[in-house]
Amino acid sequence: MLLKDLRIAVLDANLELVKRGLVLYTFGNASGVDRAEGLVVIKPSGVDYDDLRPEHMVVTDLDGKVVEGSLKPSSDLDTHTLLYREFPTIGAVVHTHSEFASSFAQAGLAIPALGTTHADYFYGPVPCTAPLSDEAIAGRYVHETGVAIARHFAAKPAGSDGPARAAIDPLAVPACLVAGHAPFVWGKDAADAAHNAVVLEAIARMAYRTLTLKPDVNVVTQALLDRHYFRKHGPKATYGQAT
Amino acid sequence: MLLKDLRIAVLDANLELVKRGLVLYTFGNASGVDRAEGLVVIKPSGVDYDDLRPEHMVVTDLDGKVVEGSLKPSSDLDTHTLLYREFPTIGAVVHTHSEFASSFAQAGLAIPALGTTHADYFYGPVPCTAPLSDEAIAGRYVHETGVAIARHFAAKPAGSDGPARAAIDPLAVPACLVAGHAPFVWGKDAADAAHNAVVLEAIARMAYRTLTLKPDVNVVTQALLDRHYFRKHGPKATYGQAT
Amino acid sequence: MLLKDLRIAVLDANLELVKRGLVLYTFGNASGVDRAEGLVVIKPSGVDYDDLRPEHMVVTDLDGKVVEGSLKPSSDLDTHTLLYREFPTIGAVVHTHSEFASSFAQAGLAIPALGTTHADYFYGPVPCTAPLSDEAIAGRYVHETGVAIARHFAAKPAGSDGPARAAIDPLAVPACLVAGHAPFVWGKDAADAAHNAVVLEAIARMAYRTLTLKPDVNVVTQALLDRHYFRKHGPKATYGQAT
Amino acid sequence: MLLKDLRIAVLDANLELVKRGLVLYTFGNASGVDRAEGLVVIKPSGVDYDDLRPEHMVVTDLDGKVVEGSLKPSSDLDTHTLLYREFPTIGAVVHTHSEFASSFAQAGLAIPALGTTHADYFYGPVPCTAPLSDEAIAGRYVHETGVAIARHFAAKPAGSDGPARAAIDPLAVPACLVAGHAPFVWGKDAADAAHNAVVLEAIARMAYRTLTLKPDVNVVTQALLDRHYFRKHGPKATYGQAT
Repeated sequence: MLLKDLRIAVLDANLELVKRGLVLYTFGNASGVDRAEGLVVIKPSGVDYDDLRPEHMVVTDLDGKVVEGSLKPSSDLDTHTLLYREFPTIGAVVHTHSEFASSFAQAGLAIPALGTTHADYFYGPVPCTAPLSDEAIAGRYVHETGVAIARHFAAKPAGSDGPARAAIDPLAVPACLVAGHAPFVWGKDAADAAHNAVVLEAIARMAYRTLTLKPDVNVVTQALLDRHYFRKHGPKATYGQAT
Repeated sequence: MLLKDLRIAVLDANLELVKRGLVLYTFGNASGVDRAEGLVVIKPSGVDYDDLRPEHMVVTDLDGKVVEGSLKPSSDLDTHTLLYREFPTIGAVVHTHSEFASSFAQAGLAIPALGTTHADYFYGPVPCTAPLSDEAIAGRYVHETGVAIARHFAAKPAGSDGPARAAIDPLAVPACLVAGHAPFVWGKDAADAAHNAVVLEAIARMAYRTLTLKPDVNVVTQALLDRHYFRKHGPKATYGQAT
Repeated sequence: MLLKDLRIAVLDANLELVKRGLVLYTFGNASGVDRAEGLVVIKPSGVDYDDLRPEHMVVTDLDGKVVEGSLKPSSDLDTHTLLYREFPTIGAVVHTHSEFASSFAQAGLAIPALGTTHADYFYGPVPCTAPLSDEAIAGRYVHETGVAIARHFAAKPAGSDGPARAAIDPLAVPACLVAGHAPFVWGKDAADAAHNAVVLEAIARMAYRTLTLKPDVNVVTQALLDRHYFRKHGPKATYGQAT
Repeated sequence: MLLKDLRIAVLDANLELVKRGLVLYTFGNASGVDRAEGLVVIKPSGVDYDDLRPEHMVVTDLDGKVVEGSLKPSSDLDTHTLLYREFPTIGAVVHTHSEFASSFAQAGLAIPALGTTHADYFYGPVPCTAPLSDEAIAGRYVHETGVAIARHFAAKPAGSDGPARAAIDPLAVPACLVAGHAPFVWGKDAADAAHNAVVLEAIARMAYRTLTLKPDVNVVTQALLDRHYFRKHGPKATYGQAT
């Protein structure tokens, strides 16, 4: 059996989503990538979480071709593989329909950085894609979902649709909302991606309360965003125990 | 004892509603129909869920006449039987006062299709009936509740009250809110109806958050509705494992 | 030990409030009355629920004089005894700071009858008292809290402060919100009062969602209120099993 | 091992925050002070709550210099020690990112005294600091967070930024929101500080519901604030059992 440790890590990430209340029935999936092997391990489609075992995980290549496994992979596979190809530094992807993050996605709204809980994990707003075109939906829809996400993280020259925008480091903003759908989240590895998905839902809950209390609230200053983000990330991180 | 398997399936559906937090005390009921026998199995009225056993279920004919059982059937029986007569393709009916779906019902508002979670289960908005007239309430009230639901799914010619409307397939939109009351939900069988009731509450929660964040939000496009609905339903469904 | 059965019933009612999430720490109390003996059994003040035993309950007369018990009675005792004197048909009183009912109380708003869940239990809006005057607060505050509640249920002739109002039967509307404070709830006996307190919180949750979705929502018609209330109460009740 | 009892009390306070749902993963910390020894006991940084033992607690002096312990102290240590130096009557400090209190902090809003639940614990609004300046954030940020809190409790002469304000007793208002961040809470001892943090979250939930129901709600009268606060605090307290 290929990639035994990664299968276990991906299964654990799927179960963490259940334990934290982020998934109802089978609405959610997690995958991980082995960059050296060029292989992806992903949850099978529509199987009860109670029944999931490491051997049920499906192994595919980076184009989504099944390499090992008798079950069908998650129906969102093509979004996962697109993200692995576009974001070479990420090690795992998680997708849920968690309630508050999905509510922002349904509203077509980014989650603004309103406090230090956000800044500890997301170095800027969690973006929301534009709605997919009818052509994209009718075509390779799951793939196009990944394309819409990747487009938001790429640099963009100034043009008729707005000013220039620098590329966003996907590990600095490890999530994106898909308009009318729900969040995709990622991380260094499967545990990290699941952890980020749980925190995303928590900051979405707080952002919802904050915005309904004070619709014209200000986002945090760049100084506070820097202070909190770099407290937990990068070479100068000071949070937690040295390891 | 008649219909032993259906009794167990109906009991399990009732218990699933409790497990998922959709019912408080005895506020809720589920039933199933055996089309070949022309018999309905329904929860008895006002019995604690902890005490429910398959033999407590009440068996009636499609007009609600008790055929087997010493307990009184659910007080909502006449709505269930009306729905079985009007919607020949459904196999089970569930009624709850689940919090968020009931809040939309109390507001007299349909739940619009705001995202893919909705589109995966409901092919269009979950409708809300008009308020019942005083005559309907004073008359055969429980029966009239079913009539108000069925009216929403029937085709309607153009008239003074609006344009023509095609009939809605009750299995494509397996729920209806009753204004000032709460949801009725159905499905192919008892497990399916209970599952739909749980998902309805989840999409009602998300719709509530979405609408309070952005009251003028757009519903999903027809293309996205088609894509997600037919991903899980109909001959071209691709979700889950082939069975 | 006096009134052993009533002590147990009152203790059970207190524990039901905890089990249903209506009380945090020691914020809540329940009492019951024995009309034949003219005695009240009430929870002691500020004792952990985990440690409560029937013998800790305090017995007082209808004026609040302790007859048996070494612990101090609940600090809300004078409200309970006032309600027993003013409402001769009630058998138990419950007080909680349950979140949503208290939020209506803090807003100084009655909970309007917005649906059948409400109508099944409360035959009309759950009223909210006027704010207590500084004199009432500085004086016999706990007693005055009961007076403010009772005033809302008494008949009132037409006057400069509005039209005439008929008396409200306290068993038909078994709860009142105290402005800036929280709900008091009652019932035929201790189990019934606790049950009503749990349902009150559920309808407050639904009313909150309904009003934030649609601030100008209509209350239910008198016909629907009658239909649902008398379905569960009075000589023509049809809900549940005959007993 | 220094201060064994205080280590246990501080650990218990940390665990109470988890049990009550106030912390997600490792977002939260509690400390206690031994005034006679001039020593602080605080949770280590970023350690799983499941693994915490009394011997993991870190002991520092009142300037935050580690005196005993091999783990790094909580990253919020400098806020804790500042509060111990500025507020000589407090015995413990708790910091959480509890959802509703943090939502008020993110909105930059104090929690107004809207009811008796609030008045039982907080003698006036729970204040929210001004946003920290970029200089404060770039400098000794954690220390400056404490300075911003202490500033809110100090007396202030009349000036261009408003009228004079008397000093606030930190034990009468045992919490402060830090704008764009989250609450800091304190108390006589570690159990008391954790209890106050739990109650703060409860009153934040109620204040949120109240303000979204009725944005122009009035705060409680001074008479009601006095009545409830002094019912539980000070020489004339009457709540609970004499001890």
